[in-house]
Amino acid sequence: MPSDNPVLLILDLVGTLAFALNGALTAIRVTRLDIVGVVTLGMITGLGGGMIRDVLIDDLPPATFNDWRYLVVAAGGGLLAYALSRWLDRLITPILIFDAAGLSLFAVTGASKGLDFGLGVGQAIILGTITAVGGGTVRDVMVRQVPTVLHSGLYAIPALVAATIVAGAYGFGFEGVSIAVGAAVVCFAIRLVGLRLNLNAPGPPGQHR
Amino acid sequence: MPSDNPVLLILDLVGTLAFALNGALTAIRVTRLDIVGVVTLGMITGLGGGMIRDVLIDDLPPATFNDWRYLVVAAGGGLLAYALSRWLDRLITPILIFDAAGLSLFAVTGASKGLDFGLGVGQAIILGTITAVGGGTVRDVMVRQVPTVLHSGLYAIPALVAATIVAGAYGFGFEGVSIAVGAAVVCFAIRLVGLRLNLNAPGPPGQHR
Amino acid sequence: MPSDNPVLLILDLVGTLAFALNGALTAIRVTRLDIVGVVTLGMITGLGGGMIRDVLIDDLPPATFNDWRYLVVAAGGGLLAYALSRWLDRLITPILIFDAAGLSLFAVTGASKGLDFGLGVGQAIILGTITAVGGGTVRDVMVRQVPTVLHSGLYAIPALVAATIVAGAYGFGFEGVSIAVGAAVVCFAIRLVGLRLNLNAPGPPGQHR
Repeated sequence: MPSDNPVLLILDLVGTLAFALNGALTAIRVTRLDIVGVVTLGMITGLGGGMIRDVLIDDLPPATFNDWRYLVVAAGGGLLAYALSRWLDRLITPILIFDAAGLSLFAVTGASKGLDFGLGVGQAIILGTITAVGGGTVRDVMVRQVPTVLHSGLYAIPALVAATIVAGAYGFGFEGVSIAVGAAVVCFAIRLVGLRLNLNAPGPPGQHR
Repeated sequence: MPSDNPVLLILDLVGTLAFALNGALTAIRVTRLDIVGVVTLGMITGLGGGMIRDVLIDDLPPATFNDWRYLVVAAGGGLLAYALSRWLDRLITPILIFDAAGLSLFAVTGASKGLDFGLGVGQAIILGTITAVGGGTVRDVMVRQVPTVLHSGLYAIPALVAATIVAGAYGFGFEGVSIAVGAAVVCFAIRLVGLRLNLNAPGPPGQHR
Repeated sequence: MPSDNPVLLILDLVGTLAFALNGALTAIRVTRLDIVGVVTLGMITGLGGGMIRDVLIDDLPPATFNDWRYLVVAAGGGLLAYALSRWLDRLITPILIFDAAGLSLFAVTGASKGLDFGLGVGQAIILGTITAVGGGTVRDVMVRQVPTVLHSGLYAIPALVAATIVAGAYGFGFEGVSIAVGAAVVCFAIRLVGLRLNLNAPGPPGQHR
């Protein structure tokens, strides 16, 4: 369980904060919600991926329910985003960077928690990927957007890469802070390159877009 | 488990009925579904919050699967709403009142069931709030509306208040019918005041709406 | 567990393939996603119903995580659909047929797995119906359409019929390949008749549509 591993707990909390900031700013940008809606969407985005993860590995009630730090960090991120919303015009890029950070960190902590719970390497890769894309997918559904995981070619793939690095290294007997951080950095870099170059995977053949 | 506690079972079933009526009438009003769609959305709304609650505390299969009264009440509420749809124009206010009633009752039964399952006070408050807003959120997503929990400032908050009253009283050694009913009435009153005055929490600073 | 029963495993994998093809083609038709989005929506549609089923009966991590064949079939279906998308204009009817096939097979395997896990007859019927409509509902929510289960009168009902046949036969002491296949064929036939005749259940009284 991440909570037993201080490094993973920190990565998990930083990921929660990043997604909470992202979700709350998205709430302001897309649908102009009031403070309760902003903080609520921030919390859903920050906590959603981890709750899906914990349901799938049957670690219930979810970590959120047992460790108040998650709730405090998610609510704090939502409130901070609300306070920052005055400067929303300058926050378009940060919104995407927070999302990339949450994605990267949750891919790593999802895969690691899966391994700690005895999943095989392949299973841990899937769990890491689902954890990474879960919160943002719930966020997009709630504000009626096509989920990023569907329309952005380089969203699920960097998460899959990071989860594969963590679980693959574990399969070869390696684990530790440097692998976790390195995997997150690789995912983050791929995601940012994709955003910068607006790279998507190829579209369906015969479809002009 | 509410089923062991006759008062909680009754509150849970009344909440299921209220949400089923609300969800089915929403189906008619928003998307003009046929009878199967109307009853289906009524059942999803009536049963959704409790199923999410039972997944999160690992009481599986959910109460709905073990106790036919939930299914009968939810399906009956959906059919009743279908029969009433002739007078839909006069039912706009009842739709909101049914929603407020379901919200209030599920906040109380969610928190109580969490306490019965050994959750701490803080965890039971979160569980009660999620149970209360869960069914309506699934309803709104299915008919493609921004969930009420996001755009209505006084929706999550009264649920949080009711769950806090129940769990807080339990923390101080008090529990019972009067506390459960009192907490639901407080939530219901706050929600109705919010609807009546169209009160929302403040919007983001610098955003003219 | 279906994996212990070769017939149910095969039906479950064919259902996964059918839904993956359907979901991936839907992704191309409705929102013009790139290859990652197409395969992702195919996998979500193919695996979603089974994951909901396994969460509800607490068979976790879900079968998908323990048996790579599900993942391979779902990803393969998505890739195949992507390759076929050149001929999308001729695939409108197949898209509906894949959906009907997945619906029919998952109603049967969902009810059967519920019975294997000790659910009662009534509970297994509900589980089979939820399994059948689950993947398509998640698919529709992700591409922002009103779920088929709500707007199509003959979608939940044939699934309910198939699950009732399987669970009812079991209640009378009968089970086996012929009942499973027969129930799936009945569901498939009802669904196709409904599509062919564009039959829906009656709309709300007093509503002119």
